[in-house]
Amino acid sequence: MKTEIISVGTELLIGDIINSNSKFLSEKLTELGFDVLFHSTVGDRADTLRDTILYSLSKVDLIILTGGLGPTADDLTKEVVSATIGKSLILDTQILARIQKIFDDKNIPMPESNIKQALVPESSVVLDNDIGTAPGIFVEENNKIIILLPGPPKEMRYMFNKYVIPLLNNKSKYKIASKVIKTIGIGESSLEYQIKDIINKHTNVNFATYVKDGQVDIRVSTKIHGHENIKKSLDIIGAQIQDLLGDYIFSTNSDSLEMVVFNLLNNKKLKIAFAESCTGGQISSRFTKMPGISQVFDTGLITYSNDSKRDYLHVNEITLNKYGAVSQETAKEMAKGLLSEGKVDIALSVTGIAGPTGGTQYKPVGLVYISLCTTKDCFCKEYNFNGDRETIQKQASDAAFNEIRVYLENLK
Amino acid sequence: MKTEIISVGTELLIGDIINSNSKFLSEKLTELGFDVLFHSTVGDRADTLRDTILYSLSKVDLIILTGGLGPTADDLTKEVVSATIGKSLILDTQILARIQKIFDDKNIPMPESNIKQALVPESSVVLDNDIGTAPGIFVEENNKIIILLPGPPKEMRYMFNKYVIPLLNNKSKYKIASKVIKTIGIGESSLEYQIKDIINKHTNVNFATYVKDGQVDIRVSTKIHGHENIKKSLDIIGAQIQDLLGDYIFSTNSDSLEMVVFNLLNNKKLKIAFAESCTGGQISSRFTKMPGISQVFDTGLITYSNDSKRDYLHVNEITLNKYGAVSQETAKEMAKGLLSEGKVDIALSVTGIAGPTGGTQYKPVGLVYISLCTTKDCFCKEYNFNGDRETIQKQASDAAFNEIRVYLENLK
Repeated sequence: MKTEIISVGTELLIGDIINSNSKFLSEKLTELGFDVLFHSTVGDRADTLRDTILYSLSKVDLIILTGGLGPTADDLTKEVVSATIGKSLILDTQILARIQKIFDDKNIPMPESNIKQALVPESSVVLDNDIGTAPGIFVEENNKIIILLPGPPKEMRYMFNKYVIPLLNNKSKYKIASKVIKTIGIGESSLEYQIKDIINKHTNVNFATYVKDGQVDIRVSTKIHGHENIKKSLDIIGAQIQDLLGDYIFSTNSDSLEMVVFNLLNNKKLKIAFAESCTGGQISSRFTKMPGISQVFDTGLITYSNDSKRDYLHVNEITLNKYGAVSQETAKEMAKGLLSEGKVDIALSVTGIAGPTGGTQYKPVGLVYISLCTTKDCFCKEYNFNGDRETIQKQASDAAFNEIRVYLENLK
Repeated sequence: MKTEIISVGTELLIGDIINSNSKFLSEKLTELGFDVLFHSTVGDRADTLRDTILYSLSKVDLIILTGGLGPTADDLTKEVVSATIGKSLILDTQILARIQKIFDDKNIPMPESNIKQALVPESSVVLDNDIGTAPGIFVEENNKIIILLPGPPKEMRYMFNKYVIPLLNNKSKYKIASKVIKTIGIGESSLEYQIKDIINKHTNVNFATYVKDGQVDIRVSTKIHGHENIKKSLDIIGAQIQDLLGDYIFSTNSDSLEMVVFNLLNNKKLKIAFAESCTGGQISSRFTKMPGISQVFDTGLITYSNDSKRDYLHVNEITLNKYGAVSQETAKEMAKGLLSEGKVDIALSVTGIAGPTGGTQYKPVGLVYISLCTTKDCFCKEYNFNGDRETIQKQASDAAFNEIRVYLENLK
């Protein structure tokens, strides 16, 4: 089914916000088997919005509009869509009662302007909004579907997942089944070379690679026309790729690197602590974004100065003077010092030069040491990352999580 | 001048990447005085691209296309634009030599497919690409301007800033001068109410507010038609707003909250350390993303467990048992304990319930205590944030930076 996504809002046209809704909807609609041919963005103006809808109706069969469902005079998506397709707006008393309740609960009188949010096009499906005031609308007429969703991404995503997916489920002739295999530590061309025989063998399967900050994702996807169980064949391809790429693969189910580490620690009932220098807390911060992390995480120490490394991690003054803060020796003493407190099973440390200044001929920007110590093992690896400060910190955090993952996966 | 931005690339339509180019160009073009009326995205298909260009030419005077300038058969923006406006493509030998050199420098033979990147529409201005292979194109005909830029954001931004801005500079009848005033701690409607007299007084000035995670930005902007010095009048309006909003304002020059704190500490030659519980390292991580931060930052302790609060911050066992980890008393002892190491001038602590679980009737999810201690002062504030874990952590980090800012700004 040919599809267009129309975003309504002057704030997008003046560049105040990025259009994350179109990305989200494109990804979801593609999976559901819809052929997204166009994105359009128009401002809060009735004339250009009407022209855009009319032109879109001449090109596609499914139009999803986001934005312009608010209570102000600027918000006119529902009004313009209804007028363009010749439907009148009628008051939905249930929706009005729900909006009224939102204000009652806050002890605020409902502004009169909010009443218009309860107006809906005749003979349309009203999609309730459980987390905001504006309801969504689903209209099907003359073999064309028009869907209206609110602009705020949280509301839009919630409503798309809850209401729109079930309504669209039988409308496409096929679906896309896909499997994402996430790798770290291997370059894109090397990866493609290693799996080229698998790619060539499966001509009805699409293999796409996406690179970001040193991670390469492989998306394996194929169209399903009926109820055939394609999951199994994708899993077989996944297993073949896994045989070839081994430890480079950290996830075959879309889990992030930190989530994989969290699960491994949880399953093995192990606790971890971090000692961070150049990553400045990013490892701990990424880890603690996950709910329930206190099961496996106890302490993170950001020891940014030499004094701090000495006082909190017991790094030897002599080590710091002889080898420097960015060295294998210091990294190891950081991890050992953290472990010596006896509170965790694994201690991981990171020290390096995130830049842009502070590099030297022998210790350039991007040089990072990562050490992992337990009561049984203690090792340290050297990394040389490229890029700006942000990229280096991100890659160092990723590498740290990856060290833990590989260690735990290979733990007897 | 009416303007449309057309993004070319199937990867945008299937949601693989977000359209950051349109945001960047919209922001820049709006500042330069162009009226961006539409964004369109089309795939790598000649038919839809041609139709989109023709429709765009009927609506606007300036079209900027990004993407589809690569060497592969999929890349057809230049070919389709030229055919649509009736121009033939001719070989630019200078561009060809430059592309050839890129491959020579890498000791790789240039693939034949790259030759097509040196083809340019007749009587067009060629915009050289210093950081990639694809040149950009500027064509002006029949009072319409069409600009082609490569899709990779880095190349596109570089070429827009270097070549396109000078070429467009005299094309708009006005420019937009603007000033962004950033606030925290005040709601949008309350803010708008407080500055309503200023808004009403300046009818030729546009006031727009943008809300994100508890921060409200005010953008004050106005059109400049000649060379009048509008900066001074915007500064005067900014000062009037500052008189009314006072401490709520943390920046009038686009600096982030953490940057403002960094600068204040740097100017006062003070060092800070953080003790984080529910923010899990986010405060330290945001702080250490800024280069040079070691001037003012020494240590960050993420004490996620009671044990950790006791061992690293000397929080009293009795305090933890009697008042709990999330309490004013624990927050204060965390900051005091950190300060007692004698290494920094200011210690800041955060403890709270980020959720989604862990809340109780008396201590609900979102309850956060922030304490700031120096050798002279020690205080603690209670916050009650709404939202999911991510939002609560972000708001708690913001509030922490804001506590430091307000303290330092009012320090004698």
